[in-house]
Amino acid sequence: MTEKITIVEKILNANDRLANQNRQRINESKTYAINLMASPGAGKTSFILATINGLFADGVKIGVIEGDTAPVTIDSDKIQAAGMPAVQINTGGECHLDAIMVENALDQLDLDPLDILIVENVGNLICPAGFDLGTHSNVVVASIPEGDDKPYKYPNIYRGLEVLIINKIDLLPYIDFDLDYFRKGVEMLNPGLVTFLVSCKTGEGIDEWLAWLKAKLPQK
Amino acid sequence: MTEKITIVEKILNANDRLANQNRQRINESKTYAINLMASPGAGKTSFILATINGLFADGVKIGVIEGDTAPVTIDSDKIQAAGMPAVQINTGGECHLDAIMVENALDQLDLDPLDILIVENVGNLICPAGFDLGTHSNVVVASIPEGDDKPYKYPNIYRGLEVLIINKIDLLPYIDFDLDYFRKGVEMLNPGLVTFLVSCKTGEGIDEWLAWLKAKLPQK
Repeated sequence: MTEKITIVEKILNANDRLANQNRQRINESKTYAINLMASPGAGKTSFILATINGLFADGVKIGVIEGDTAPVTIDSDKIQAAGMPAVQINTGGECHLDAIMVENALDQLDLDPLDILIVENVGNLICPAGFDLGTHSNVVVASIPEGDDKPYKYPNIYRGLEVLIINKIDLLPYIDFDLDYFRKGVEMLNPGLVTFLVSCKTGEGIDEWLAWLKAKLPQK
Repeated sequence: MTEKITIVEKILNANDRLANQNRQRINESKTYAINLMASPGAGKTSFILATINGLFADGVKIGVIEGDTAPVTIDSDKIQAAGMPAVQINTGGECHLDAIMVENALDQLDLDPLDILIVENVGNLICPAGFDLGTHSNVVVASIPEGDDKPYKYPNIYRGLEVLIINKIDLLPYIDFDLDYFRKGVEMLNPGLVTFLVSCKTGEGIDEWLAWLKAKLPQK
């Protein structure tokens, strides 16, 4: 008699398993979910506010989970002031969100009325890249003042992305930033990556992003 | 007979013990060492170059240990082009430097001729805060485009600092940045913190920083 050998192709770790549960839960509400990552101060919250305001007239409802390392509600307050629900996660000094934190936040948020869920990760170009949260797409906000060498120095976060937002293009006249060099670095890591050049301050480029996003939304 | 009870006041972890060894080694060369931390793109390398160039005429020798998450030598090349020795650490995706990495880098660097050693940490406002490298002071480069709420959102890195550099002040006219709000946040975490407002692009404020630094240098 030959022993049967079972080959397990991919053993999910605890985070991946929970992330899949989160995704299933989000799918049941027909909500499109985004994991939004960036350096500190690249403009994640401004980008969320521009998205909320840009889709408000269309009746699109956006819920936000805000990740911060400290117990502050600066960003959540801005989201709620824009008329949308927000849940704050305080990571207690931890440098990234994980699927367990998002699971806990989902318990505080009524997904059913939401068309979009945006999870604003902790400001960090390194650690968040390694953790699936259960969202549908990873979006990174890069920013002009950060410099054009970031894809070369922080490659991991650029590899697993669906969309790249290059923010603060209104500052291009005042900063030495070689857009071709930046894009060449991104192209090596993630060929053909969907990219939008925007300024959350002036509104430039936001409409193109909103058109992309609207095409992704499931029928409620 | 009574058993003698030994009370150990503080048990050093492996990193702290190695950091102390690094510091002793640096002290033996009468070199002043700085752990330079910041978000990605705040201007750490530009700040090092401004420091090298500003002290060049005085014959001050500065060595640099460059920490990056990827095997690139973009920053080390700039330091060497400025005429100073640089050693590159590739953390292999890790989000911060630790004392072991610095110990290995010190093996590659002749400390004796150096007046100053600057360790440029990985661009990250969270994880580097927890690791003593064996330097004499922690310096953070904040930058105007990052926004004025960073001390409130990333408090840990502001607590253990000796010097704060606020960089890119040439961009103040183009960005909504409330300097009083920013400084109030810093003051709550680190009262009386030595702070310099600079622009590495225009050179504004660099002389005040250089005067502070020169006063710290041990006699060789």
